[in-house]
Formats: sequence, C-alpha cells, structure tokens
Amino acid sequence: MSTATALIGVDWGSSNLRVFRMAEGGTVLGRRADGRGASTLAPGQFADVLTEVAADWLAEDLPVVVCGMAGARGRWLEAPYAPCPAGLADLASYFVRPIDAPEVRILPGVAVWRDGALDDVMRGEETQLFGLGAEFDRVIAPGTHSKWARLDGGRIVDFRTHMTGEVFAALGASPSFLGGTAGTDDAAFEAGVCAGLEDEPLSRNLFSTRVGMLAGRVAPTGLQDYLSGLLIGAEIAGEAREGLQGLIALLGAPALVERYHSALTLAGLEDVVVADVEAATAAGLWRAWEAMR
Amino acid sequence: MSTATALIGVDWGSSNLRVFRMAEGGTVLGRRADGRGASTLAPGQFADVLTEVAADWLAEDLPVVVCGMAGARGRWLEAPYAPCPAGLADLASYFVRPIDAPEVRILPGVAVWRDGALDDVMRGEETQLFGLGAEFDRVIAPGTHSKWARLDGGRIVDFRTHMTGEVFAALGASPSFLGGTAGTDDAAFEAGVCAGLEDEPLSRNLFSTRVGMLAGRVAPTGLQDYLSGLLIGAEIAGEAREGLQGLIALLGAPALVERYHSALTLAGLEDVVVADVEAATAAGLWRAWEAMR
Repeated sequence: MSTATALIGVDWGSSNLRVFRMAEGGTVLGRRADGRGASTLAPGQFADVLTEVAADWLAEDLPVVVCGMAGARGRWLEAPYAPCPAGLADLASYFVRPIDAPEVRILPGVAVWRDGALDDVMRGEETQLFGLGAEFDRVIAPGTHSKWARLDGGRIVDFRTHMTGEVFAALGASPSFLGGTAGTDDAAFEAGVCAGLEDEPLSRNLFSTRVGMLAGRVAPTGLQDYLSGLLIGAEIAGEAREGLQGLIALLGAPALVERYHSALTLAGLEDVVVADVEAATAAGLWRAWEAMR
Repeated sequence: MSTATALIGVDWGSSNLRVFRMAEGGTVLGRRADGRGASTLAPGQFADVLTEVAADWLAEDLPVVVCGMAGARGRWLEAPYAPCPAGLADLASYFVRPIDAPEVRILPGVAVWRDGALDDVMRGEETQLFGLGAEFDRVIAPGTHSKWARLDGGRIVDFRTHMTGEVFAALGASPSFLGGTAGTDDAAFEAGVCAGLEDEPLSRNLFSTRVGMLAGRVAPTGLQDYLSGLLIGAEIAGEAREGLQGLIALLGAPALVERYHSALTLAGLEDVVVADVEAATAAGLWRAWEAMR
C-alpha cells in the first residue's frame, strides 16, 4: 500500500480545525488539530492558519479538500448548499475555490427545501455521513445543533436540525436548572429522558423539573443531568412522531454520543451503531475527492 | 359605602410586593408597592419588610391576608398546596399563620396531582383567578412561568405551567438569538408566532430561526421578537392539542398580555378578555378573607 500523500483533507468546524494527510484510497497517514475554529476567523485568515498548521504537508502541492463551516457565509468563502436528495456527486459539483489558495476546494453544505422555502441546512455533517457505509437508514449527529438525517443508498434524502446543545447550554445557566454537574447522576439523566419522551410541549415539560424538585423526585445535584435527559428525550420523541425504523448510526463526540445511545435505548430503539466520527470524516473527504477528480 | 379599612391584602410575588388597604366589600382604599420580592428575603425578614412598607395601616390591628411566594418553601412560612379541583373554600381551609405576625394569614397555593404524583403547582395566580368573574372557562397568566388554568364555576379544575418566560430570558442571551430588542418588530413577532403554532418539536423549531436568517425571512434586528413569538406560539400550540373552547381571560403584565392576545388572535382564538390583574388580585384577596372569616 502506497504511503505517498495523495490528499490533504480538512474538517473546519465552528470551533475546531482538523487536518488529515491521506494516501491514495483514503488511508490516514497523519492528523493535526487546532483550536482556531471557523467562527473565530475572518475570511482573510483561513489560508494563513491552514499554512501554519500544516505548512510541511502543503509544500507538496497536493489537492486540499475542506468541509464544514469554512464554507459558511462570511467565513473563508461561501459555498452553496446542495439540495436534498444529495449524494457525493453533488458535493463534487458545487465546491468553491478561494482566490488566496487555489489548491483548496471547499465543499458545499446540504439543504432541505420544503414548499419552495429553505427549511434546513447542514455544513460538515454531510461529509461525515458520506464517509459511513451505505447500510444506514438514519444518522444522528448530536451536538450544539443536532442533525437527524434520513439516508437512502448513501444519499441524504431529508434531515432536520434540533438546537438541543445550544438550548442545554442556555437553560443550564438559568435559575431553575442550577444544580450539579452534567454527567454525574445517571438516574437523574434517565428520569429526564423518560420525562422528555412523553412528548409534552417542551416549555411545559421543563417546568416538570421544578415540580420534581418540590416532590423530591429530582435531587438538586441532579438538575443538570435531568435537564440534559429531558432535552434529549424530547428531541427523540419529536423525531419519533414520524417513525424511526431502520438502522441508525450515531456520529459525534464520544461522551455525548453515549448519552444519546442510552436515551435511544430507553426509547426502545435498539438498532443503533456508534460510528467513529474521525474515521467517517476522513473517509468522507476522500470520497468527495474521488468524486470530483 | 364605608371607607373604614377592613382588610390588608398582600400579594407577595417572587420579585415584587404589593399591599392593598381595603374597605368592607373589597373596595381598594390605598395601595403600595415594594421591590423586595419573596425570592430576595429570608424567613425572618418578611414581617419587618411588611411593617416597613405599611406600618401605619398595620397599626390598626386589622387582619392581613397574603398570597403568593411568601408561602413557598424556605420563605416566610410554607403554606401547603390545595389539590385541584380547588375553590375559595380550599384557600380558606389551608392557610398558615406565621409565629412572628399572628394577624397574618398566608394563603395556600394550588396543585394538580396526576396518577398519584404531584404534577403542577401555582402560588399567587390562584388568588387572582378567584378574583375574576365566574364566567371564564380558561385563564392564561403569562409570565416567567405561564399558567394555563381550566375553570368551572369559579373553581380551578386543572392547570399546566409553561416555562416560557424563563426559556425566553435564557435563549435570548444565546448566540443564535442575539439581535434586536424585543417589542420593536411586530412582523418578526408574528412570523415567530406562526412558526411556533406549527407545533413542531421546539428544539427543531428554534433552529428555524437560523434558517430564516440565512434565507432572509428573519431580519437580524428582529431576532428577539421572532424568538418571543416562536415560544408563545409553541406554548399555545401545545395547549391547543387538547382543545381551547370557551371564554379565555388573560391576566398579567399589560405589555406581555398584549403579546399573548396578538398570538391568540393569530391562532384563531377570539373569545379572549384582557383582565385587570391588580383588580383581580385585590378582589381575590378579599374573597379569600370572606371565605375564611
């Protein structure tokens, strides 16, 4: 197997940058990470940061494929959104090339249009999804903005975003939920999931936390975990309204994925595979390059 | 009509104190307000604060009836919750008398029990509800924790709390919603209400704000109003799942009540009366006194 570098793959998220040096076929030969996420940089800074992080790799004059928020409006260079249903060929068709780094191709995001209006968007997760095997019917990518995608034969047919992580961060600092540290009270997390799965209106379900405290069902030290469970449970219940058949892949940071896995199990969903997010990202970048070269 | 004082009525909420001097029959002869809400005071401070605010009135050795958070756990003295269905006679049965002010009667709150478990609670709103006429089928008291009560012949049959105000305060400071000032963009508010009324999972609906920004449907200066509308719309949609027939009273701070009124109109609910919250509070305190003396 060749160990010559064939591609530099870049996953440039809002808050992190990951660079992969890859051989022909997509084998990862080296990886680097940096904290200068896309949301912290002005358009003119991206090329310099990438050079700083991977100057030796870039010196070989290789193609560079970038996915993620580097392509968002106001960042390195805005890349469009490929409309669903979207596959690798669509990523390959809509990439953009920044003037200050002509060897770089920034991949598009993917969008859902409904009734003629833009309904949902993703940037970065699509590349990870395309790095998974084609056997999955759904992919859940939990995070600040969790993505629930429906796949068919490796194409993204439809998806919806839940602002669960951002809601957790905001409400976790609100008076009703100050108590404990997330990740320390499994029983409170599970109780929260079960409450969330009831699919009551969320604003109402959130108040159940205070009632639970009054009634002694929720310990003050379990508040953060209860809230986390409640929000994840509500997210699952919202998606389950339209059915959740098939094989599900979970894709994201291990600790968060573990919480979603527990919650999905409590919801009776057993066909769940925890995917390796870094491997999926690298594979997706390689496949996008294969589709466009 | 007598102008002799017959009762001192006190509405002691979390963040405000209101004192009414009332004649026989409930006519309000004088009113005072103070910013020392129940959530800012330790148990031993309540009697002193009340004396400071209304020493001249209290000198007449009159009965004092208190509603609201002064009776919450850890405040002046914990008063129980009367279980639904609850009427004035129940308030009159469950009051408590603090040892440091024997002329004072603190009214109970009202609770809903479902399947043997405490399901929801209110403190203070019940007294306001009992101060309304008996013609209403529902009362909505919007606020930090909005109450939706179902009434029958002047008794509270059932109610549910939505944490809408607290969610708005928390999310309004979160990155996705920083923009504009609430109350300045009616069109954004209405667009938010219409999105909220869709009754999609809230975490998903919240993300529609970002998509709306991208698509140019939501102006950056309208973000706070859009969020406010979205949360109020979602609250109404959640309640409407079980039907909202009958005459509705809206009870609360005028600016907020106006927003709910607009949103209810957008939801097609026309049988809505905006009640005078201070008059309702005073009337409720008087009627509670009538029921217990």
